[in-house]
Amino acid sequence: MLERARILDAGDPLKDYRERFSVPEGVIYLDGNSLGCLPKATPGRLEQVVREEWGEGLIRSWNAAGWIELPTRIGAKIAPLIGAQPDEVIACDSTSVNLFKLISAALAMRPGRKVVLSEPGNFPTDLYMVDGLEKQGLATRRLAPRERIAEALDEDVALLMLTHVHYKSGAIFDMAALTKAAHEKGALVLWDLSHSGGALPVDLDACEADFAVGCGYKYLNGGPGAPAYAFVAERHLAAAQQPLTGWMGHAAPFAFSDDYAPAPGIEQVLCGTPPILGLAALEVGVDLVAEIGVERLYAKSQALSEFFRQCLSERGVDLDLVSPTEPDQCGSQLSFRHPDAYAICQALIARGVIGDFRDPDILRFGFAPAYLRFEDMAEAARHFAEVLESGEWQRDEFRERAAVT
Amino acid sequence: MLERARILDAGDPLKDYRERFSVPEGVIYLDGNSLGCLPKATPGRLEQVVREEWGEGLIRSWNAAGWIELPTRIGAKIAPLIGAQPDEVIACDSTSVNLFKLISAALAMRPGRKVVLSEPGNFPTDLYMVDGLEKQGLATRRLAPRERIAEALDEDVALLMLTHVHYKSGAIFDMAALTKAAHEKGALVLWDLSHSGGALPVDLDACEADFAVGCGYKYLNGGPGAPAYAFVAERHLAAAQQPLTGWMGHAAPFAFSDDYAPAPGIEQVLCGTPPILGLAALEVGVDLVAEIGVERLYAKSQALSEFFRQCLSERGVDLDLVSPTEPDQCGSQLSFRHPDAYAICQALIARGVIGDFRDPDILRFGFAPAYLRFEDMAEAARHFAEVLESGEWQRDEFRERAAVT
Repeated sequence: MLERARILDAGDPLKDYRERFSVPEGVIYLDGNSLGCLPKATPGRLEQVVREEWGEGLIRSWNAAGWIELPTRIGAKIAPLIGAQPDEVIACDSTSVNLFKLISAALAMRPGRKVVLSEPGNFPTDLYMVDGLEKQGLATRRLAPRERIAEALDEDVALLMLTHVHYKSGAIFDMAALTKAAHEKGALVLWDLSHSGGALPVDLDACEADFAVGCGYKYLNGGPGAPAYAFVAERHLAAAQQPLTGWMGHAAPFAFSDDYAPAPGIEQVLCGTPPILGLAALEVGVDLVAEIGVERLYAKSQALSEFFRQCLSERGVDLDLVSPTEPDQCGSQLSFRHPDAYAICQALIARGVIGDFRDPDILRFGFAPAYLRFEDMAEAARHFAEVLESGEWQRDEFRERAAVT
Repeated sequence: MLERARILDAGDPLKDYRERFSVPEGVIYLDGNSLGCLPKATPGRLEQVVREEWGEGLIRSWNAAGWIELPTRIGAKIAPLIGAQPDEVIACDSTSVNLFKLISAALAMRPGRKVVLSEPGNFPTDLYMVDGLEKQGLATRRLAPRERIAEALDEDVALLMLTHVHYKSGAIFDMAALTKAAHEKGALVLWDLSHSGGALPVDLDACEADFAVGCGYKYLNGGPGAPAYAFVAERHLAAAQQPLTGWMGHAAPFAFSDDYAPAPGIEQVLCGTPPILGLAALEVGVDLVAEIGVERLYAKSQALSEFFRQCLSERGVDLDLVSPTEPDQCGSQLSFRHPDAYAICQALIARGVIGDFRDPDILRFGFAPAYLRFEDMAEAARHFAEVLESGEWQRDEFRERAAVT
């Protein structure tokens, strides 16, 4: 198995990119879909931002070091990864905050309609952001199981809001078909690309998507709590109005007028002062992903995922797979259901195989292909088999829940 | 003048703190109220967060490095600087986003009232955030000049929202009196402490303030676009509901349930995933300010400000002062009105004296006392006089507006 893995690694066109990341010794990191690894170029760039741009340049760096342009500059770099135009994407705030902005903008564009349609089990923050709008009396949340989304679309639906690749299962929605179905009912569509952007090809513009958000700290390797991004289709920029009307979204932020007038372009999505340290780190990650290319990344993650399943199978590990079995219907991850998922996950982490537990019973393994080898798959499968066979996960230490799971 | 300054510096109880900051050679930095200087401890702490906690610890650092606690831990450290209890303050998002949360929470607590009362010329983002709520139909903005705020309070006012120290003039509102006046009319009060927190003593709890927000990158020295903070009086934590109901504000974020239930404590103000790089840098700045103490900081900034005025006066510079002349009615800054404020500001910057221009005609000098010397005041006054006398500010190069002014 290990031999086969090494042959695959030798022929891997992305094999040299592992060297561009800091991957800790003794760790097989299958959680790049929760927090991407540190690009080796990031500490140096941050050092420069902190010591030179902040320490020496001080306030002058807003102009001289181009800080003020970071949200649009990074947005323009993310755009080709998700099939958008450079002036349709901006890096700012958190995914949650951006959801609020764009859900609100969509509701305002569909007066008389209040329903935001999504699926139960969508990533919690997506659903929660609609709850907040519901309490304000501005939205009504409607949930329909994914196979019945299309029938739940009707003339009351202002917005269809879905996560392209499901965070638990990895299942991929048919973006083109669902966007079309929503438009046919007069609804707008918002795609959450948190588990897609930088992992697999997305074509927002070809699908005629209206809005999208995505995460900076997963496949884009922007660091813990990195700024997120937001997409507004160019055709909506004139009409869309998001309610977080902070000074950075103003048409003339430094005129210091009393009244708000939105910037004509994608800057209208900005709210407060951009977080420069986070943006600088995010840019390094985005540059690296753009250099490798999402097509190659996805092809390799599919191959890694397929090989991991083979290895598990050859070791006789037969678990309840909750991810789609067709590789092209699944994102860069595999998830399994097990009643003791939490303890098994902890036992694997103790062996250096870092996967993810998702309440209540999901073991999730992400395959961030820029820094993973086929060898890691073979070894992870071996550890997994050994943990299950030995029953070591039954130890008390692996059952005690931490604050963050 | 310089001699007197050196005597004052020798007797300054805060003189050793300058060494704790990176102050660029040849720069007199009078803009710490726009972006605070870099604490020397910050690059090392960030290096640790990036290389060790992110690079080596990866996802484990949410628990092992205490990332998940950063918003409340830093909030608890900011609390004593603003007269709050540790469990009333949290560090998160931007000032603008926090304004939206708390304005909305206040409106929801005063059903039947929609007016948010503020003053014209308040910091733009504060006014703009009400515009967004107005467009959503949730708020009505009312502006009254500062001397007539009290009379503008009536039974329609849900919230009085003011900036404690004015960003342009430095004028201080009487927090206790205005809070009391608002409460007598049944209104709630939100104080923006962006130019107060870490600069001068604030006593939110003694004034019975309801809500507050503040900035992390000015007097708290948290770095460009640092996370902001939010205060909710403990008595409101059970009733307040803010609409940015992201997963980090949930009572059990890692239960991944479909329905939102706010955390019982100040964590309810959180929305998305906390920005760890920004928070780590902010904590260093907050620790340093807490170590020095706001009482000592304000005493010194008043003395610096007074000495700067004396130096200007002795040099025959007689400009239109827009700041209050009584030191205890003014924050840590002095502002002057001049029709050519922009060009003069640029000419001073070219000499290494970094002040601030505020549209249309304000020259603003901030006295962040942790790293400024009386010598800097004497020298800044000399440069100021020379720039005015020589007319060098009339050069073309000083008139061309940059993106950020």
